[in-house]
Amino acid sequence: MEQRKIVLADSEIPRQWYNILADLPTPMSPPLHPGTGKPVGPEDLAPVFPMNLIEQEVSTERWIDIPEPVLEKYLLWRPSPLCRAINFEKLLDAPVKIYYKYEGASPAGSHKPNTAIPQAYYNKVFGIKRLSTETGAGQWGSALSMACAMFGLECRVFMVKISFEQKPYRRLMMATWGGECIASPSDRTQAGRNILAENPNSPGSLGIAISEAIEDAVGNKDSRYSLGSVLNHVLLHQTVIGLEAQKQFAQIGVYPDVVMGCAGGGSNFAGISLPYVRDKIHGKTVSVVAAEPTSCPTLTRGPYAYDFGDTAMTTPLLPMHTLGHGFVPEPIHAGGLRYHGMAPIVSHLVKEGLVEARAYDQIETFTAGIKWARSEGVIPAPETNHVIAAVVQEAERAKQEGKEKTILFNFSGHGIIDLAAYDSFLTGKLANHRLSDEEIAVALKAIENYPKP
Amino acid sequence: MEQRKIVLADSEIPRQWYNILADLPTPMSPPLHPGTGKPVGPEDLAPVFPMNLIEQEVSTERWIDIPEPVLEKYLLWRPSPLCRAINFEKLLDAPVKIYYKYEGASPAGSHKPNTAIPQAYYNKVFGIKRLSTETGAGQWGSALSMACAMFGLECRVFMVKISFEQKPYRRLMMATWGGECIASPSDRTQAGRNILAENPNSPGSLGIAISEAIEDAVGNKDSRYSLGSVLNHVLLHQTVIGLEAQKQFAQIGVYPDVVMGCAGGGSNFAGISLPYVRDKIHGKTVSVVAAEPTSCPTLTRGPYAYDFGDTAMTTPLLPMHTLGHGFVPEPIHAGGLRYHGMAPIVSHLVKEGLVEARAYDQIETFTAGIKWARSEGVIPAPETNHVIAAVVQEAERAKQEGKEKTILFNFSGHGIIDLAAYDSFLTGKLANHRLSDEEIAVALKAIENYPKP
Repeated sequence: MEQRKIVLADSEIPRQWYNILADLPTPMSPPLHPGTGKPVGPEDLAPVFPMNLIEQEVSTERWIDIPEPVLEKYLLWRPSPLCRAINFEKLLDAPVKIYYKYEGASPAGSHKPNTAIPQAYYNKVFGIKRLSTETGAGQWGSALSMACAMFGLECRVFMVKISFEQKPYRRLMMATWGGECIASPSDRTQAGRNILAENPNSPGSLGIAISEAIEDAVGNKDSRYSLGSVLNHVLLHQTVIGLEAQKQFAQIGVYPDVVMGCAGGGSNFAGISLPYVRDKIHGKTVSVVAAEPTSCPTLTRGPYAYDFGDTAMTTPLLPMHTLGHGFVPEPIHAGGLRYHGMAPIVSHLVKEGLVEARAYDQIETFTAGIKWARSEGVIPAPETNHVIAAVVQEAERAKQEGKEKTILFNFSGHGIIDLAAYDSFLTGKLANHRLSDEEIAVALKAIENYPKP
Repeated sequence: MEQRKIVLADSEIPRQWYNILADLPTPMSPPLHPGTGKPVGPEDLAPVFPMNLIEQEVSTERWIDIPEPVLEKYLLWRPSPLCRAINFEKLLDAPVKIYYKYEGASPAGSHKPNTAIPQAYYNKVFGIKRLSTETGAGQWGSALSMACAMFGLECRVFMVKISFEQKPYRRLMMATWGGECIASPSDRTQAGRNILAENPNSPGSLGIAISEAIEDAVGNKDSRYSLGSVLNHVLLHQTVIGLEAQKQFAQIGVYPDVVMGCAGGGSNFAGISLPYVRDKIHGKTVSVVAAEPTSCPTLTRGPYAYDFGDTAMTTPLLPMHTLGHGFVPEPIHAGGLRYHGMAPIVSHLVKEGLVEARAYDQIETFTAGIKWARSEGVIPAPETNHVIAAVVQEAERAKQEGKEKTILFNFSGHGIIDLAAYDSFLTGKLANHRLSDEEIAVALKAIENYPKP
């Protein structure tokens, strides 16, 4: 009977997050104020985020202590198991060992609570009473609703209207945790009212929802805005995943050859990979691979450039791989990967050659996901199917090369609320959405005159 | 930082199930053939179940080895964590320590795979190619679909039509694992066609679905029927839960004062409690409590009597607490607790005074469930909310008595697919459904002339 899971005791949970800014071979370009073109300072961000999180955002300390009250909540489901996918290995019949961190074990079903909990905590100790955020498919809004319930904060989530209507379970999940979920555009904000005046039937977009959430937060001294990916402090919080994996592998004396994650905004990918990128910077041989959709190929086909983080152009200019802030990806089922940009840290690592990116077609990802569900049991989220497709490809390469490989990937979440997507796949209704060069060129027009990083 | 989870390594998983038939102080009454009134023999059951499972059903061996291929699948998520609900304890502010086994960690989200996997395995080694079953709310059909996928069996699930229509995610879950889910009544069986001829718009019932599944199975030498609760071998498989809990408690030197589970057919309750009932039989002081709905109060208000296991009267007569096979409970959201009878083993233990039963109103259970979700994170299944209500009551009693208590309960599953039920609760649409004595008397008329156990 082979070991399938390597577990850590509660007492072995990492006590610090890892901050890769301390180890980068070349410094990152700073975020710029769009008006002045100058780097933004902490005070520019103060109306939006609490100062303790802003300090984390710009910190270059290598290790940052995880506060005790955050650890206590993490222990509700962390350390997450490091699992070996023996059934899936047999199915692929390739010379690979496949390990994964199972982040679907969190109460919200994904890695998102890893940052929702510290964000709620830091806002709470800063004296904030209410958080506003946006959500696309709903994973982030759910996680933040739960975290706010645990720390006694109110939570207001602006959910893209079309998703609000298509995914009623997500809204109900937030309500169960006490979060208020509002279809965006709404009449709660000027931004929302402006859109509705133009088009009362607007289906909404992530850009509009961000604008509403920020406006809703900054107008009130007791409230702040919260973001579920992209930013440095969000990626920092997620490193608990990779740090746990390293402890778990140490138990069995294994070091992976390849570390993989799917990448939308970049947070789950960074969570598992940054501790390994650190090793790589210090000379270790390890491949680090980000898997993204061909319908939103930010890393594989977007330039590294300055761009806004949101469609409505309210954020600072961020240095990142981007398809242009006006780019609207096809409505693939992996809603969490439909983001025009990419976390500046991940973008920087790709530019530096420390991370490799690959893109996968939608049908390929669901084909991999169904194989996974029928052998390993858990039904993966559509986002997670992208990294599973990457694992399948990596296994095939190992077979062709006749080379043994140990693969580690981040299983970012389960797909129980995304079953309609599997239905579309099983009934032949899914399509691929590869972009033409022309489509990309058109999308990038919006940023052609921006400063270059 | 207090320990919140006691975990077992893969190598510590129990290698045997516990069979309480070896330890009962008084023997159980046998199932009877309804035609002859004589005890049924193994050969009577052979068209319905494979002989290796029939042998388990009647075995009085105390320990039964878990086959290696079953252990391998169990390890996908087992041993499940034994968790301490520190946040919920604080909320209740009573002198209790609350521990729970988290069975929602399975890929299907409940305890059901604990028996689905061995049932699929034993049928496979017996040479069976297809399993048929029925499902009400869908938990069992999902678990068996997954187990069949893992052992290369076909799976056909007859799902009560009204649930089939109300809970599309359940059907999609089965389809994702390759199970065929058919709305019952269907035109696939004579039983279904008879019902449809009478009423083409029949919403179906568990009784009809069982009849269809049995008919579908027994007509074919390559197929058998599978049941997710009630029977001895099903409860046997679930004892892995309680056996793990005992190992986990031994690690920290704790023995619970009270062991609790919700009870519908009886399998998750038996799973956690039978190893403790064994201790109790051998002199240990421990309370064992089954929590059921007031709308289907089998144990608390039904007599111990011989009755059919299904509405269509196709099964042997089983000795059990029952409300009569014709009793149709109100459509409460805890679909898994809407069963007119109760596992003969659990019924026998209640009769013997080894197990105590308590009933809870629907609104009380959801009130408890929401408190749980907002403090401990995981959203419980509506069935699980019943045992959480029992825990709340037990904590209040401990507070009144000023007595410290350690409570263990079985967290049978998460409620992510049941979010519509929480919506009903939060919007004030839920009702309680206590039965009058007259309603119970009417339901029991059906069995008044049956043999008595």
